[in-house]
Amino acid sequence: RVNGLACKNPMNVQADDFFFSGLNIMGNTSNPVGSEVTPVTVAQLPGLNTLGISMVRIDYAPRGLNPPHTHPRATEILTVLEGSLEVGFVTSNPGNRLIGKVLQKGDVFVFPVGLVHFQRNVGYGNAVAIAALSSQNPGVITIANAVFGSNPPIAADLLAKAFQVKTNVVAQLQSKF
Amino acid sequence: RVNGLACKNPMNVQADDFFFSGLNIMGNTSNPVGSEVTPVTVAQLPGLNTLGISMVRIDYAPRGLNPPHTHPRATEILTVLEGSLEVGFVTSNPGNRLIGKVLQKGDVFVFPVGLVHFQRNVGYGNAVAIAALSSQNPGVITIANAVFGSNPPIAADLLAKAFQVKTNVVAQLQSKF
Amino acid sequence: RVNGLACKNPMNVQADDFFFSGLNIMGNTSNPVGSEVTPVTVAQLPGLNTLGISMVRIDYAPRGLNPPHTHPRATEILTVLEGSLEVGFVTSNPGNRLIGKVLQKGDVFVFPVGLVHFQRNVGYGNAVAIAALSSQNPGVITIANAVFGSNPPIAADLLAKAFQVKTNVVAQLQSKF
Amino acid sequence: RVNGLACKNPMNVQADDFFFSGLNIMGNTSNPVGSEVTPVTVAQLPGLNTLGISMVRIDYAPRGLNPPHTHPRATEILTVLEGSLEVGFVTSNPGNRLIGKVLQKGDVFVFPVGLVHFQRNVGYGNAVAIAALSSQNPGVITIANAVFGSNPPIAADLLAKAFQVKTNVVAQLQSKF
Amino acid sequence: RVNGLACKNPMNVQADDFFFSGLNIMGNTSNPVGSEVTPVTVAQLPGLNTLGISMVRIDYAPRGLNPPHTHPRATEILTVLEGSLEVGFVTSNPGNRLIGKVLQKGDVFVFPVGLVHFQRNVGYGNAVAIAALSSQNPGVITIANAVFGSNPPIAADLLAKAFQVKTNVVAQLQSKF
Amino acid sequence: RVNGLACKNPMNVQADDFFFSGLNIMGNTSNPVGSEVTPVTVAQLPGLNTLGISMVRIDYAPRGLNPPHTHPRATEILTVLEGSLEVGFVTSNPGNRLIGKVLQKGDVFVFPVGLVHFQRNVGYGNAVAIAALSSQNPGVITIANAVFGSNPPIAADLLAKAFQVKTNVVAQLQSKF
Repeated sequence: RVNGLACKNPMNVQADDFFFSGLNIMGNTSNPVGSEVTPVTVAQLPGLNTLGISMVRIDYAPRGLNPPHTHPRATEILTVLEGSLEVGFVTSNPGNRLIGKVLQKGDVFVFPVGLVHFQRNVGYGNAVAIAALSSQNPGVITIANAVFGSNPPIAADLLAKAFQVKTNVVAQLQSKF
Repeated sequence: RVNGLACKNPMNVQADDFFFSGLNIMGNTSNPVGSEVTPVTVAQLPGLNTLGISMVRIDYAPRGLNPPHTHPRATEILTVLEGSLEVGFVTSNPGNRLIGKVLQKGDVFVFPVGLVHFQRNVGYGNAVAIAALSSQNPGVITIANAVFGSNPPIAADLLAKAFQVKTNVVAQLQSKF
Repeated sequence: RVNGLACKNPMNVQADDFFFSGLNIMGNTSNPVGSEVTPVTVAQLPGLNTLGISMVRIDYAPRGLNPPHTHPRATEILTVLEGSLEVGFVTSNPGNRLIGKVLQKGDVFVFPVGLVHFQRNVGYGNAVAIAALSSQNPGVITIANAVFGSNPPIAADLLAKAFQVKTNVVAQLQSKF
Repeated sequence: RVNGLACKNPMNVQADDFFFSGLNIMGNTSNPVGSEVTPVTVAQLPGLNTLGISMVRIDYAPRGLNPPHTHPRATEILTVLEGSLEVGFVTSNPGNRLIGKVLQKGDVFVFPVGLVHFQRNVGYGNAVAIAALSSQNPGVITIANAVFGSNPPIAADLLAKAFQVKTNVVAQLQSKF
Repeated sequence: RVNGLACKNPMNVQADDFFFSGLNIMGNTSNPVGSEVTPVTVAQLPGLNTLGISMVRIDYAPRGLNPPHTHPRATEILTVLEGSLEVGFVTSNPGNRLIGKVLQKGDVFVFPVGLVHFQRNVGYGNAVAIAALSSQNPGVITIANAVFGSNPPIAADLLAKAFQVKTNVVAQLQSKF
Repeated sequence: RVNGLACKNPMNVQADDFFFSGLNIMGNTSNPVGSEVTPVTVAQLPGLNTLGISMVRIDYAPRGLNPPHTHPRATEILTVLEGSLEVGFVTSNPGNRLIGKVLQKGDVFVFPVGLVHFQRNVGYGNAVAIAALSSQNPGVITIANAVFGSNPPIAADLLAKAFQVKTNVVAQLQSKF
């Protein structure tokens, strides 16, 4: 075991240890945000252990959104396979600059490690992207879920102060996650 | 130059290259969140270049809040010098577990790299903490500012979908940052 | 400059610094091996600097081959977009085990850092893959070119001994590169 | 287990895994050097595992000394909470330059990884510092103890040659540790 | 256990954990290439675990060859103890430049991580070198064995295309390994 | 420039960038400790830049000593070419265990990163060792020079307290360096 995960002797590894099947399958985007991520990290593909990389497929229904999120341990490089995606990331304090672009099929964009980023389908049909991440276990923090949907919840008055709104607005946000 | 910053010959370094003054000075907490961070990173203390660590002082007015934020490149370890702080971080998807505690003077807490975390003064007077970060340039992403206060703004309808609220709620949030 | 490459102030970066266009374009496979790699490394996409990842598109004509090669600084994770690929890597000494598999559309395979690996189109039409590498500058060493096509050439009698063949066989091999 | 230490599933971590109590407590400086270090490393705070940082409190009686030592795996950043400290580190060969300064409350100083350094209370009362180190397990090598107090001892004639003194001087030094 | 290998408590380590004997012994060069490598990696010297370095002795009969190979995880620095060695490495694509030199006793040469390299005895007697590698477990990929001697073999027609020769030439090469 | 040092384009590197000559030459051991280190680090061999390794030759006159020292950024692996060496390192606090051994020709020993270590010729003739270090720029801190010979000196009363001796003993030690 290495990193708390299995690490086979090179004499015993098999092709299936380095194999994953199914990135051709469209994810189910029937959810509130209209997108779905199919991950291929060390959890799905054990041969990635110690190797510092992983891959995902992202499907977007029309108007579907991969909502603002961060990867605490990885940079992401994404390419559009189908459709048109509006993408962006926000630089850290104090700039908080939104660096964004509309991507077409074959366009590539980079989301630097730890920054808040998103993609949204701005085309007429479905959109599909393949992205790679610079960690075998990049982690995902969906901002809305982490902030307004944690278990247990962050205190509403704390969030009200953080977001400079009344507590009932926070309660409304918290009721969604 | 190393990392785009000055890197002196060891024969020419001076004590002041490794020195910073002023962490005894209370930060100005007269702001909407009632807290202030005084950073000592490579930007303030050039001798930290290549050395992978930095330090901050955080002041909290009564009820003051260091609002939910992340450091894209650092873990943080914090100790309370004065007062009582409610602290917490939220684990990544899918758990989104809030791991929190009320800290008293002399208590230490860890915020793992990239996770959303916060501190709030829950005592009667001012509170003060010293924290260290595992990067010479940890970066700070205040969630509210990055999501609702970026320049230019993230599209309101995009955020409405992400946070599952009406656009006017987003507009209200965006008007604050 | 960082890593000998430009590194912009976050206040000055633009979306185009993080953008590349053209991975939808089929590479020209009219060459002896019948394959073509379109790279998106830090050389093509400056915003990858310091971020530890890159991406490539690989096109394969029918029977086209991405010949045995290594990446001296990166693990590769590949997914098949179109067609059928026979892929494999060889473990290091003393096993020299060929770990291989025939991949179909949507299959993913990992080539661990530094190991000799290849892909071959075993379907009837063109094949296309997207791969990601765990370095902004992974490097490519095509074995045939490095060994039999270096400039100047490695001595023929040295290679004859290494490959346990007569010098004229080496000369034949060297004449191709 | 990771790094030979426990590494919990994120679903099972508790706040206490990331918590340590007691940095407000003055260390017992009733010892020959008149200082005491209270460590908060992965040994005391298990949640630091894999996170690359730790913290210590250092107490100094009047004239108390944190004697010359190194951390084999960490840079240290220190801030003075109370009192006045004379601090310094010595650059490596061939310069062996002493880079030192007298620090007051709120001053910060950096001791680069692996270099010999010390702090001494030069004020009238007790002094207190908080320092952070760029490793979860920085290690401490007190020079006097390692060189003159090892178990078994380093041969006295060897040390006599190293320090260019007579063996009886070495014997005197060794008798103290 | 760390890295899947034993990692003793510092209180229990013994000198023999950090010790290896036998690099004075000439390796048996009675083999087709006329060279032999005696490794001192973490497999032979357990105390190297986590320490990122290893060492080898290489013996060369007259005309003996350490055939073209790579280390997937290490740079190598080599010094000649006895004899004359022709050494070289080949830069990656597209240059494929052979960077080579004839070394005499006391000469040092560097083979950067992952690049194809070799040494050949070009003197009249035996030659001996000591080399160090920047990993506790550098790995060795002998090109001829990996490409033409894998188990199972890489398909002959695939190699014929890669090396631009007829299948019978590949068969001849494969018959040797 | 990378790491503040030259980093050539691969198209322009020459063999001499990766070459050093002279490790066959006996160092001049006519000095108080009777040993001499001939370094081959990035300062002597520019091609080591970014590659994380270096090499040294160490000569020892009869009874010659490589006095207690540390490398702040490297582990060392040493092999004896000629003679007999008593070697040792001291574990960090609290153990301060001396882990030592007498080495003969062909023996290999490891000195883990940052620990105090030494070698002494315990044979009748000269001794020679080759050692490698896990950094292109390992640094050397000779304990006696850093502690008793810094420029300016560390205060004598400070050292007297650290080493638990009278100031005149410190003065005697300081007079030698």
